[in-house]
Amino acid sequence: MKKESMSDLLESALNPQSVAVIGASENIHKIGGRPIHYMQKHGFAGRIYPINPGRDEVQGLKSYASLAALPEAPDLALVIVGGDKAVAAVDECAARGVKSAVVIASGFGEAGEEGREVQQAMTARARAAGMRLYGPNTQGLANFGNGAIAGFSTMFVEVPPADGPIGVVSQSGGMSAMAYGLLRGRGLGVRHVHATGNEADVTVSDLAWAVAHDPDVKLLLLYLENIANPELLARTAAYARERDLPIIAVKAGRSESGQKAASSHTGSLANEDRAVDAFFRHHGIWRVRDPHAQALAAEAYLKGWRPEGRRLVVISNSGASCVMGADASEEFGLPLAALSAQTRQGVADRLPGFATATNPIDITAALLSNSGLFGDVLPAVAQDPAADLFFINIPVAGAGYDVEAFAADTAKFEAATGKPVVVAAWQESVAAPFKARGIPTFANETQALGVLAQLASHTALMRQSHAPWPPAQPPSLPEGSGRFLNEAQSLDLLAAHGVPVVAHRLCRSAAEARDAWGVVGGPAVVKACSADVPHKSEHGLVALRVESAEAAGALFDAQWAKLAELGAAREGVIVAAMHKGRHEFMVGARQDPVFGPVVVVGDGGKYVEALQDVAVLLPPFAAADVKAALKTLRIAPLLEGVRGEPPLDVDALAEVVVAVGRLMASAPGRIASIDVNPVMVGTRGEGAMVVDALVERAA
Amino acid sequence: MKKESMSDLLESALNPQSVAVIGASENIHKIGGRPIHYMQKHGFAGRIYPINPGRDEVQGLKSYASLAALPEAPDLALVIVGGDKAVAAVDECAARGVKSAVVIASGFGEAGEEGREVQQAMTARARAAGMRLYGPNTQGLANFGNGAIAGFSTMFVEVPPADGPIGVVSQSGGMSAMAYGLLRGRGLGVRHVHATGNEADVTVSDLAWAVAHDPDVKLLLLYLENIANPELLARTAAYARERDLPIIAVKAGRSESGQKAASSHTGSLANEDRAVDAFFRHHGIWRVRDPHAQALAAEAYLKGWRPEGRRLVVISNSGASCVMGADASEEFGLPLAALSAQTRQGVADRLPGFATATNPIDITAALLSNSGLFGDVLPAVAQDPAADLFFINIPVAGAGYDVEAFAADTAKFEAATGKPVVVAAWQESVAAPFKARGIPTFANETQALGVLAQLASHTALMRQSHAPWPPAQPPSLPEGSGRFLNEAQSLDLLAAHGVPVVAHRLCRSAAEARDAWGVVGGPAVVKACSADVPHKSEHGLVALRVESAEAAGALFDAQWAKLAELGAAREGVIVAAMHKGRHEFMVGARQDPVFGPVVVVGDGGKYVEALQDVAVLLPPFAAADVKAALKTLRIAPLLEGVRGEPPLDVDALAEVVVAVGRLMASAPGRIASIDVNPVMVGTRGEGAMVVDALVERAA
Repeated sequence: MKKESMSDLLESALNPQSVAVIGASENIHKIGGRPIHYMQKHGFAGRIYPINPGRDEVQGLKSYASLAALPEAPDLALVIVGGDKAVAAVDECAARGVKSAVVIASGFGEAGEEGREVQQAMTARARAAGMRLYGPNTQGLANFGNGAIAGFSTMFVEVPPADGPIGVVSQSGGMSAMAYGLLRGRGLGVRHVHATGNEADVTVSDLAWAVAHDPDVKLLLLYLENIANPELLARTAAYARERDLPIIAVKAGRSESGQKAASSHTGSLANEDRAVDAFFRHHGIWRVRDPHAQALAAEAYLKGWRPEGRRLVVISNSGASCVMGADASEEFGLPLAALSAQTRQGVADRLPGFATATNPIDITAALLSNSGLFGDVLPAVAQDPAADLFFINIPVAGAGYDVEAFAADTAKFEAATGKPVVVAAWQESVAAPFKARGIPTFANETQALGVLAQLASHTALMRQSHAPWPPAQPPSLPEGSGRFLNEAQSLDLLAAHGVPVVAHRLCRSAAEARDAWGVVGGPAVVKACSADVPHKSEHGLVALRVESAEAAGALFDAQWAKLAELGAAREGVIVAAMHKGRHEFMVGARQDPVFGPVVVVGDGGKYVEALQDVAVLLPPFAAADVKAALKTLRIAPLLEGVRGEPPLDVDALAEVVVAVGRLMASAPGRIASIDVNPVMVGTRGEGAMVVDALVERAA
Repeated sequence: MKKESMSDLLESALNPQSVAVIGASENIHKIGGRPIHYMQKHGFAGRIYPINPGRDEVQGLKSYASLAALPEAPDLALVIVGGDKAVAAVDECAARGVKSAVVIASGFGEAGEEGREVQQAMTARARAAGMRLYGPNTQGLANFGNGAIAGFSTMFVEVPPADGPIGVVSQSGGMSAMAYGLLRGRGLGVRHVHATGNEADVTVSDLAWAVAHDPDVKLLLLYLENIANPELLARTAAYARERDLPIIAVKAGRSESGQKAASSHTGSLANEDRAVDAFFRHHGIWRVRDPHAQALAAEAYLKGWRPEGRRLVVISNSGASCVMGADASEEFGLPLAALSAQTRQGVADRLPGFATATNPIDITAALLSNSGLFGDVLPAVAQDPAADLFFINIPVAGAGYDVEAFAADTAKFEAATGKPVVVAAWQESVAAPFKARGIPTFANETQALGVLAQLASHTALMRQSHAPWPPAQPPSLPEGSGRFLNEAQSLDLLAAHGVPVVAHRLCRSAAEARDAWGVVGGPAVVKACSADVPHKSEHGLVALRVESAEAAGALFDAQWAKLAELGAAREGVIVAAMHKGRHEFMVGARQDPVFGPVVVVGDGGKYVEALQDVAVLLPPFAAADVKAALKTLRIAPLLEGVRGEPPLDVDALAEVVVAVGRLMASAPGRIASIDVNPVMVGTRGEGAMVVDALVERAA
């Protein structure tokens, strides 16, 4: 995989030797004029062919009447013309042997059914001719590494480009321009700014894959509204992790439609947005809310910092900032480093008597009279192995403060230790000297600590690995055509795949029920079994604490009659052992149309959907991953035992989740969803036991 | 209260006629030089008396050798000298009849025990002489309304002052300077910038009270690390609400010490930080995390917007921003306004065919070719009564866009409707025209919608009112000296104050227990009763589901023996009815050393502390306030009934909370805390019933 270079991939678009502009304009402020202007201005070394039948020359270049008139088939054609002309131009490109066509025009798939049909047909013809299509309805592509700019964003005028180590790939042209502008505004160089628009052919995943193979790219930013090609995005992420390329993604648009259509708990709990979260987490992609958050964190990533620990040192010249820093460290999960006695003494030796030598370190307004304090204190702290991350907060400074010296000392510290150090300073006069020395500097503590926390968490995500699950035979489902397996069938299927299920008997007569009571032992549960009644308790078809064989027999008769009354298939009555455990969990899995098997685990019982205390996992995962996910639940404090209770058997629960996940993953096209609720979990060593389950067949 | 003016209050400090500067310097960059420089520069019309025995003149003013040499006792003295000299100067001020002394020097209470003692003695002497003391360890006071600047912040040089409608009162000098600088950086005028430092005498509450009485102040910002005088702050907040003066506070420093010392559930759940939250909420003060958040929201408050509703209209020229706006509206609790068919038609008529006329309104890049779109669309939306709040997001613009026209149209819209409208635009060239027209303009959507949501929520808080509770007789507690009442006493006390408690009998013999079982009815609960064993179940002293009188008698004997074994006072054994209810809640109250009675309600049962699903209320409150608080719980979805269940009797629960709160409020010095857990709550109409309770006597 490593041998593949970007140029093997979408070379004709990202590194074209020749570009035709269909609808070229002399006016550099028009959409047809800008790309030519940009390419000439930003050093594109290939051949540019303006196509405009009305002119002989465009922007100093020979203009052609048509594609056919060109001396060669260009690698890339940029289709500026709109409507029917755009479709005709794409067809001409395909016929002429163009390798990549970027279609700017809108009014296709995004405009309704008719547009969608035209778009599909156009794309099919392009593909048949072996041509890749970008857009339509896109702002286009821009590679500032070679000046190949097949796009028209005005942002390249607003904020002048500079080549650099960042790639931006976005469905939305607006968001790609915004990310570009914000990054450039922070002084960072940007190489790739690509928008995919309607994604009739090439998707964000395709371009992300290509850009990840540009060895100069050190940070990849994505904006997506849907994940058209999750398999390729996953491969891109794997490749990126291998070469230590962080990916930060924005995924906008939370559709509730999937949730509304869901008939199972799992469908509602492992909803689209949670599955997206799980997908990104699984693949080591960090998700943020918008391009502002992407740009905010970029510089810290480009420093190459990949912190292993989260222990924070806070240094400020304001006592209030130290107080707030302690609050914030808790909030961001960056515990204050417990400095050694030696470090504290070293710091105290350098500070005036009334300053604090614990962490947060308050160097006080004494900084005003002694500019060397920063430079004195930093090395004293640097050698402490308990310190992973450093935060310098300067909420107030100005005339009288030697900020240049503070910044120089900070830069020296960073160069010597390689440890992450960030600064908060809202006054531009204070921030500028730090920024000039390459120290990531933020307007405030929230931003600074937010970025440090992100860096530590994202590093941990990027370092995780997921051993593949061994291939498994697809499960054999019982004969039948109903949507659901009945409970006995569901339990049996789980049991056959290594999931511990409650002792039970499926009975077809009162006599069998009485016998079964004797076998499973009382008190027992008696519940009707019919694939037609997946939610039994709502019909009074579950009897708990049945204390005698006679009662079991009587309940059989009552439930059997009730099933007839409901017109439901009478598949039997289950007599099962009462298994209490200490806490009820739910485990589920479903086949997601985008991500494939999605697994959910959470607090169980009848309020699972109302309380939504769940975690979502994507295969493959191990028991350790499940246990880490359980720690994110709101009920996590109960897992280890509170009020003197012993811990719960989370190992056994984790094994259930893995087994359910592996069953689901082995059953595409066979199983649509599995709901297991409750799983009774006992004290550590006592195991976990599935008491009820519902398996839905794939349609 | 309205007749009081600021000048009746801390007039000598905030509006002095004469100011002495003890330790005056010729050098305007020194602490002793800056205040004189600032006063002369910013129009202080009173008399300034530099005191410096080494000079005849300071900064063009006659200098005096000592306070004694002054021609009058100055209203205000600013003590710049440090250490022992500061103490001596304060004493001289007191002797000379100075009304207010601002002590800059540090090394007092914040420096340790010795400093604390010196500070206390100095303050006591000042008070005895009728002089108010500001500080020590303060950056001082500044009133830009009259140029009385008894402070030395360099920030007044960094960012030039302009008088305006904002008051800043802060314990921390750094945070007051930062708030000032941030506000001025946003172009807002600031009148008051006061820091209280060690608060030996005058506190943030005192100054807040005074500043709230300045009729020109329209927004009051506070920074606190502790609330020294909650009663006065509460009165200030009440006065401020009366005159529609919003208060936004930062409270830093979350001490865990109170939590660690707590022996009751309530003590741990209604911890300091939750009590602070409840205090601010109760008094209509909005809490934010830092001065950045204060400054961010200031302009929107100063517009005078006090939105009654939260229904949002999003307008953008970027489709992606519309998608993200829909996501964010959900996140911020600002539901997208459902525009009428007429409005949608009106918008659609004005937009090109491919633009979206639903909300969010995507006016698309067509804005580039038609600058009038904004001006066309806004009035079409303005008339829709479903729209409360407006958000215009322009993530990308620049050359070619007539941003001046957009801004002018927006300002016209705002002037015509008076409805809140905010803008997000990160490009300064785009933001500037909006800012110039007084439209609050933010860097991004998160900030813009955060401020709108804050404004709506804060308005609702400011409009709430709390009817006072009628005065109540203090409760009579049973004789005894133990820390806790026993369970029977606790239940009886609650019952006597209108709280429904479970039917129970306190028995002193097995025979009484057998009789009691017959009276309360089986199955019953049998539990030992001893003030020495507040947590009975941990000792196996609670038996549930006791099915016969004989069993009750036997349990009496066993528990009676167990109490003896534990060496606990044998006060009886309770035989109580088993009351199940549908959900267990916890209710508690405690006497907080700062805030007085604090009440907590939340999800009950044995995991209350582990799961911490609670809301905190400060008296007085009504049942409606309790019900609103219950809606903030994580288990809130269960209150109205899920999965076809009927709603819970939240009215009955609310009455319990009010009764417990009123009992607590009537018992200062008598009751330290009340834990009621569980309160069994049934289906609506079935009531609530306290099953266990523990009352702790005040020390």
